[in-house]
Amino acid sequence: MKLTKITSRDEDFAKWYTDVCMAANLVSYSNIKGSMIICPNGYAIWEEIQKIMDAEFKKLGHQNVQMPLFIPESLLNVEKEHVEGFAPEVAWVTHGGDEKLEERLCVRPTSEVLFCDYYKNVIKSYRDLPKLYNQWCTIVRWEKTTRPFLRSREILWQEGHTMHETEDEAINETLQMLHVYEDFQRNYLALPVIVGLKTEKEKFAGAIKTYTIEAMMYDGVALQNGTSHYFGNHFAKAFNISFLDRDNKLQTPYQTSWGTTTRMIGAIIMTHGDDHGLVLPPKIAPTKVIIIPIGNDEKIQKTVNEIAKQLDVSFEIDNSNKSPGFKFSESEVKGIPIRLEVGQRDLENNEITLVRRDTLEKIKIKVNEVKNEVEKYLEIIQKDMYNKALARRNSMLYTANDYEEFKNIAQNKPGFIKINWCGNEECETKIKDETGLKSRCILLDEESDGNCIICHKKGLHKIYFGKQY
Amino acid sequence: MKLTKITSRDEDFAKWYTDVCMAANLVSYSNIKGSMIICPNGYAIWEEIQKIMDAEFKKLGHQNVQMPLFIPESLLNVEKEHVEGFAPEVAWVTHGGDEKLEERLCVRPTSEVLFCDYYKNVIKSYRDLPKLYNQWCTIVRWEKTTRPFLRSREILWQEGHTMHETEDEAINETLQMLHVYEDFQRNYLALPVIVGLKTEKEKFAGAIKTYTIEAMMYDGVALQNGTSHYFGNHFAKAFNISFLDRDNKLQTPYQTSWGTTTRMIGAIIMTHGDDHGLVLPPKIAPTKVIIIPIGNDEKIQKTVNEIAKQLDVSFEIDNSNKSPGFKFSESEVKGIPIRLEVGQRDLENNEITLVRRDTLEKIKIKVNEVKNEVEKYLEIIQKDMYNKALARRNSMLYTANDYEEFKNIAQNKPGFIKINWCGNEECETKIKDETGLKSRCILLDEESDGNCIICHKKGLHKIYFGKQY
Repeated sequence: MKLTKITSRDEDFAKWYTDVCMAANLVSYSNIKGSMIICPNGYAIWEEIQKIMDAEFKKLGHQNVQMPLFIPESLLNVEKEHVEGFAPEVAWVTHGGDEKLEERLCVRPTSEVLFCDYYKNVIKSYRDLPKLYNQWCTIVRWEKTTRPFLRSREILWQEGHTMHETEDEAINETLQMLHVYEDFQRNYLALPVIVGLKTEKEKFAGAIKTYTIEAMMYDGVALQNGTSHYFGNHFAKAFNISFLDRDNKLQTPYQTSWGTTTRMIGAIIMTHGDDHGLVLPPKIAPTKVIIIPIGNDEKIQKTVNEIAKQLDVSFEIDNSNKSPGFKFSESEVKGIPIRLEVGQRDLENNEITLVRRDTLEKIKIKVNEVKNEVEKYLEIIQKDMYNKALARRNSMLYTANDYEEFKNIAQNKPGFIKINWCGNEECETKIKDETGLKSRCILLDEESDGNCIICHKKGLHKIYFGKQY
Repeated sequence: MKLTKITSRDEDFAKWYTDVCMAANLVSYSNIKGSMIICPNGYAIWEEIQKIMDAEFKKLGHQNVQMPLFIPESLLNVEKEHVEGFAPEVAWVTHGGDEKLEERLCVRPTSEVLFCDYYKNVIKSYRDLPKLYNQWCTIVRWEKTTRPFLRSREILWQEGHTMHETEDEAINETLQMLHVYEDFQRNYLALPVIVGLKTEKEKFAGAIKTYTIEAMMYDGVALQNGTSHYFGNHFAKAFNISFLDRDNKLQTPYQTSWGTTTRMIGAIIMTHGDDHGLVLPPKIAPTKVIIIPIGNDEKIQKTVNEIAKQLDVSFEIDNSNKSPGFKFSESEVKGIPIRLEVGQRDLENNEITLVRRDTLEKIKIKVNEVKNEVEKYLEIIQKDMYNKALARRNSMLYTANDYEEFKNIAQNKPGFIKINWCGNEECETKIKDETGLKSRCILLDEESDGNCIICHKKGLHKIYFGKQY
């Protein structure tokens, strides 16, 4: 038996990424173009993500529901900007069994119109507000090119859709959920994400404001890793949703939506992975520890059992008849945060060897201290992984004071470039057309301090540009 | 504010069912024909079901994956019996965006062919077996008539698909999962289900054997509430799946699949519900206790907080400004197993009132004994609900010794009728055509003790017949 060879990360990042996805048994290509199979190791990570995020959503009062999979064409057409954004990339169902449908249905690419169609029936009074609903489901967008987790025709995701009495409340919800995403990705996925506002050009079809979570991958390329939208009452008006307010007057409610996908798994791989394979942040790793006995004499097996009894985190024991070296490699490919090697020589000193996946450092620990040592190192690894990713990200953040400098950086250095920008789409488009870099996000906590690097008019925003997946 | 009126169960069972579904906010009709919306209270029950079943599957070594949503027509066509069974009821995707697809895709009605298409690539050696995969997902079957939870075009379900080295192992898996379903439905859903084998006529398209979980609803009508299929190596051969066995010989693996759906929620409603609404078995109730303060003076609020601190099960406090009577009714409609009423008069004796949802019995309990009393009654309610359902079911089980008796019972008494049957489809079809009753299942633990009631040839099986949803 041999492990699949992984291409070196610095040699061919794209190939490295695919190799890791396959070698760690995260996904498999299917024979259906554009669809991937999420294999056990990949799906287990998604289950961890779901468990943590879902609990967070519920803590904030959100409830899960399940809306229809299909959207009739006429319903998709209700909000003009929205349909223009999505119609080109939906899958159309035209027949049920042998019968041609009277109206064709698209497989939902997102569910704003489905939620609105429902809210229309159930929102009558201010007492019915807020509605704080979320669903975990599959959506379909007819992408031409696909890559595991990053871009595929079917996407597993969660989408929150809320309705509120006031504009303020809806804006607060939009920002609250943005920060829920930010905190989750920082604290659990160890991703040093940048949050900000999308430009008018890049915002969601139909939204007033789109906030975004921008992660930077190992190669300096951006991955949009979650968005939170404020809709005002665009959709509510288009769908005739209204309620009697506290003064018995008819009002239109204010709406948000927010979503994250299995793309987050892609971000974990491309931020933390190395030439040995996947590296999982401990807090999201389905298996946090793997125990590998070296040899199977009685004392070793006894120690393995002792350790298993001590541990208070999810672990596996590899008792297969593969060679120790193979088992070590396999645990590395899978990204299990801590490996405990139990061997004859160490045991003479009542020790075993703890191997950190993130650094591959080997540390001798006492058998009777395994529980504490494991918990200590899980915390250290989580923190170190974040800091390492942060340092790398910071080393690829640039500021350009003029367009020449911008083009120079864009051509030579991967990463994000910060500039002053006038806010006009023309300047944004010029940059994109001439350099290939798209706007990532307008900074929320930093104001413009100079003129637009393109038109030299007064700067309105600080904004990041970068290449994207 | 008023609660939706619920039609009496004995007056119009079908209308009662729909009323309960709506009044308890379990589902809502959508404007998309055939699709329902699963509302928060309904989805929360599904989440409880998923949590418990998923843990059980994993304990037995199953892993979750996610297969594609779409099946290309050519792939669906690979196994002949299977495609004949499903082609008439699938939804066909013919266009992606503006482009007509080269080959149309159906939205999966079940995923045997998708799993086989995957297994073909990953099963090479006996070391790769067994494969024990499951997925939680949505499937689509183009039903003409639909009813909440019982029959709809979109179905939320789990489907297990396993591959094994030997026939024995696959048969054991089929039966093991049948009994996992049986135990879950008995112990958690309090459903006194009958397990058995489907006839050749009623088995799953492509299966060798289909085992079934048959539940009987309050009105004596059957609900097929889960199936477990043994496929032999039909599919494996059609898909050219083979592996090198322990003797280095090429073999074809043996396959199973097993599934249950949100239909189980329909079974809970129609088995346990009453004229006040839903009645949830404690073990599956998302909220097990609701605390309702009657009045809001300080002592009452203090007691409510004391109780809340004591409780070790999921509970809600209804502090809304609705009237106590309204709150009582609402807690009954939702089926919350235990209601704790905290009022002035009881408190003078340091008591509160515990109301059982299943019997509506009111019991005075001491404030400092709330935790134990609640836990005691949750157990009692769970047990009593099962026994009550069992007694009702048993009262509607009949045995017919000849066809006249069968027709007489079939015409006058709802329920299941047990007969001796020769095993021939002709006799089965005659019964169905003449009485409207379909075979439910061949009994596993009782042998034929007489001649077939139709053809009078030697009986091969004891079998139940009944009407079905």
